[in-house]
Amino acid sequence: MKIAILIFDKLTALDAVGPYEVLSRLPNAELRFVAEEPGPKRTDTGALSLNADVAISELPDPDVVLVPGGEGNRPLMRDDEVLDWLRAAHEANAWTTSVCTGALVLGAAGILEGKRATTHWAYRERLREFGAEPVVARYVEDGKVVTAAGVSAGIDMALHLAARDVDEEFAKAVQLAIEYDPAPPFDTGSPEKAPPELVDVVRQAEGESETAA
Amino acid sequence: MKIAILIFDKLTALDAVGPYEVLSRLPNAELRFVAEEPGPKRTDTGALSLNADVAISELPDPDVVLVPGGEGNRPLMRDDEVLDWLRAAHEANAWTTSVCTGALVLGAAGILEGKRATTHWAYRERLREFGAEPVVARYVEDGKVVTAAGVSAGIDMALHLAARDVDEEFAKAVQLAIEYDPAPPFDTGSPEKAPPELVDVVRQAEGESETAA
Repeated sequence: MKIAILIFDKLTALDAVGPYEVLSRLPNAELRFVAEEPGPKRTDTGALSLNADVAISELPDPDVVLVPGGEGNRPLMRDDEVLDWLRAAHEANAWTTSVCTGALVLGAAGILEGKRATTHWAYRERLREFGAEPVVARYVEDGKVVTAAGVSAGIDMALHLAARDVDEEFAKAVQLAIEYDPAPPFDTGSPEKAPPELVDVVRQAEGESETAA
Repeated sequence: MKIAILIFDKLTALDAVGPYEVLSRLPNAELRFVAEEPGPKRTDTGALSLNADVAISELPDPDVVLVPGGEGNRPLMRDDEVLDWLRAAHEANAWTTSVCTGALVLGAAGILEGKRATTHWAYRERLREFGAEPVVARYVEDGKVVTAAGVSAGIDMALHLAARDVDEEFAKAVQLAIEYDPAPPFDTGSPEKAPPELVDVVRQAEGESETAA
């Protein structure tokens, strides 16, 4: 099974690497990090670069596509090469997926039209621009489109995909192998749980990076 | 604050990238991925490479050191350049940390002697080889040594460090920004929770990769 994780400059690394850690363990997975141009892609913080090994033009038919978030994906929303690649892959493939604001790119490709979907909480309402119905959920499966909430939600989504694609026993084993028994020190991981003041602070910070992008 | 994440070939990517996503957001963080030799380091699955931007010799005085896991870290346990770097950094720094089997490298450097510590559940008893007391916990802080359990536990540890190093309000904001409100599809993330048969399967797989390494 060919799995393509699309990367680009100014991506959010955990959006991509969380699901990678699960999906790369699928039996017969051929997982590749892909980009318009292969080579190093620097993350949104500037402190890390990941390498794309393969150009999207070299991998036109992935069975699973994953688009991560990060301010650097906004230019992809107007990039015909990327959008055409996503649309063609989506026609033929098993799963088209996103983490965080990766959903905006799927939306720009027309893939979320009429779908229930999710994204990072601060961008959820923007899904309506693409004809999608925003859902408050860790991940949403609608047909073959699976979208995850912000950053860390990609791990939950990937375990769900592992269960759907192989079986629950396999997904449970991966969860144990990566010791995914999360114990966040605080209970502020979603805007529904965090105090409103904190939500405002983080929303404003997100908005500023958005304007900058 | 200088933060050094030590990488190497055959690392487990999420061990490094989970904490990176939190620690890179600390105020005044200068986070660098470091290695004995700068350049691309391919992960244990072979499907991804991350770049080390800086040689450890160029960064002798990090305030925070993090050693991730992955079968590729076993050679570091006999690598004097790495062990000397870790020992020197540990003398002077604020925090010496590990995720997953990164603890074995701290142990080999003598840093866990007399400490309470943790690591990936399948390797927990090995901590005794280094004079440490193995603890069943998501992460353990003992003096300035903080060790995390397997793979995904680095996220929890990093949020704890953010709270210790800045304050709880800051750590809560980061948790919200990365939407860390985990909802694993199964309850099999630790050997205490997973069925014994599943624990045996995963332990055997870990043992095989260990022998291979």
